[in-house]
Amino acid sequence: MPLPSDLQNLAVVLVRPRNPLNIGAVARAMSNFGAARLRLVNSYAAAFREAKSAVNAQDILQNAEEFETVADAVADCSLVVGTTAIRDRVLPLPLHRMGGAGSTLIRKRLKRDRVAMLFGSEKIGLTNHDFSHCHWLMNITTDAQHISMNLAQSVAVCLYELTRPTRSKATSATSAAKPATAGETELIAKLMLEGLRISEYVKPGTELVTEKKVRRLLLRLKLDEMDAKVLLGMIRQMAWKLRQIEKPR
Amino acid sequence: MPLPSDLQNLAVVLVRPRNPLNIGAVARAMSNFGAARLRLVNSYAAAFREAKSAVNAQDILQNAEEFETVADAVADCSLVVGTTAIRDRVLPLPLHRMGGAGSTLIRKRLKRDRVAMLFGSEKIGLTNHDFSHCHWLMNITTDAQHISMNLAQSVAVCLYELTRPTRSKATSATSAAKPATAGETELIAKLMLEGLRISEYVKPGTELVTEKKVRRLLLRLKLDEMDAKVLLGMIRQMAWKLRQIEKPR
Repeated sequence: MPLPSDLQNLAVVLVRPRNPLNIGAVARAMSNFGAARLRLVNSYAAAFREAKSAVNAQDILQNAEEFETVADAVADCSLVVGTTAIRDRVLPLPLHRMGGAGSTLIRKRLKRDRVAMLFGSEKIGLTNHDFSHCHWLMNITTDAQHISMNLAQSVAVCLYELTRPTRSKATSATSAAKPATAGETELIAKLMLEGLRISEYVKPGTELVTEKKVRRLLLRLKLDEMDAKVLLGMIRQMAWKLRQIEKPR
Repeated sequence: MPLPSDLQNLAVVLVRPRNPLNIGAVARAMSNFGAARLRLVNSYAAAFREAKSAVNAQDILQNAEEFETVADAVADCSLVVGTTAIRDRVLPLPLHRMGGAGSTLIRKRLKRDRVAMLFGSEKIGLTNHDFSHCHWLMNITTDAQHISMNLAQSVAVCLYELTRPTRSKATSATSAAKPATAGETELIAKLMLEGLRISEYVKPGTELVTEKKVRRLLLRLKLDEMDAKVLLGMIRQMAWKLRQIEKPR
C-alpha cells in the first residue's frame, strides 16, 4: 500500500539531541514513513553516526545535515512548527493539538512547500528561544501524569499523523500566494533589530527579549513571498540610513 | 488537557518479546497514553522487569501479567486485534489500515468491553498461529521499502491513534485576536512613510505610489491589535531616530 501522503518536503529537526540511540531510532521511524530529511542542531559530537538501532535507516543518517543554529536549520522552510509537552509553562505561541486542525495545515503546506518540525532534547525539550523560530506549536495529548514521551516515539507519532489516511479529500493546494521562507523572514528580523538597536529601542540588557519580540511579530504576520520582499526592501533602506548615524559621513 | 478517550479497557499484548529495552519503551508509551494493562506471552526470561528506558512506567511493568499462551492472555477480551507489517504473506484474516474504520471499531468497543491488541516479536512479528486468536488484523501503512517498525514505536502509534481527537472540533487554541483598527494601521503607515522618505526609499515623484504600497502591505498583513501596538512602537522609534538626520542635534 502506498503512503497516502508523502513527506519529501518535511524536515525533521532535532535540537540538541543527546543520545545516539534516539537519533538512530528517529531515523528508523523516518524511513518507515518515507521522510528523508533529518537535520540536527548542536547534537552531541558526531556520535549520531554510530546510532546502532537504525535498522534500514543508514541512508537517512548518512545524509543528515548538521547545523549550529535553529535559524540555519529552518532557513529554507516556509512553515516551522515546534513540538512541546507543555508542562507548566506559559507558552508564547498558539498551540495545536496533534490530530486537530494543525495537522491539516501541515499536510496542506507539505504539498507545495518545505515544512520544519522541531523536536527538543530528551531532557528539556525546546527552549523559549527555539520557540521564537516557530510559527506555532504542536502537542501530543498525553496522560497528565506522564507527559514526557520518548523522542523517537513522538517523531513516529507525528509522522504517522501526517501520513495517516484522512477522510477529508484535502482541499487542493489553496491558490494563495507562496509563503515566505524562514530564511527570508530571518533576514528582515536581522535588519529590523539593527535598526532598532541604533534607534535606541533596544535598551541595555533587552537584546534577547527584543530579538524574540521581533521574530514573533514577523512570524505572526505570516508574510507571503511578495510581502516579505516589499518589507525587506523598506527595512533594509531604513537600516542603511540609520547606520549613517553611527558612522557619520 | 485530558485524553479524549481512555484506554483502561485495552490490553497491550506482547507476544514473545525479546528485548527488555523494548518492553520498557512499550511501557513508557503506554504510560503516556493512559494504558495500564501490559501482558506478555512467552517473553524471554523475566528480564523485562529491568527495562531501563521505562521512565515513569514502573507501575505498568510491575503490574504486567505473564502468560504462556496467547489464548490465556486474551481470554477476558471480547475483541482481539493482531498487528502486522504484512510483508509478502497471504493474510488469513480481514485487514484494516490503522486510522481507517478499524480504529473506530476499537474505540467503540473500548467504551464497554475489554479489547486486546497483539504485537509480535521484534524479529518475525505474529505467526499465523497467533493470528488464529484474532478477529481481524491491523496494519500501519509504511514505506514499501521500510516496513519493519520498532516495536515500541508501533505501540506508540497505535495508542495515539486510539486516543487522538476524532471529530475535528478544531479546538481553536488560537483565540481570535481583536483586529487592529484602520486608525491604528494608518498611524503605522504614516510613520513608516516618514522613515522611508528620510531614508531616500521614496524617490522624487513616487510619493503616492509608495504610500499605496505601504498601506497595501499593512492591510495584507491583517494586523491584530497587539501586533499593531508592537509594530507601531518599533516604527515610531526608528522614525524618531531618522528625524535626527534631517535635523542634526
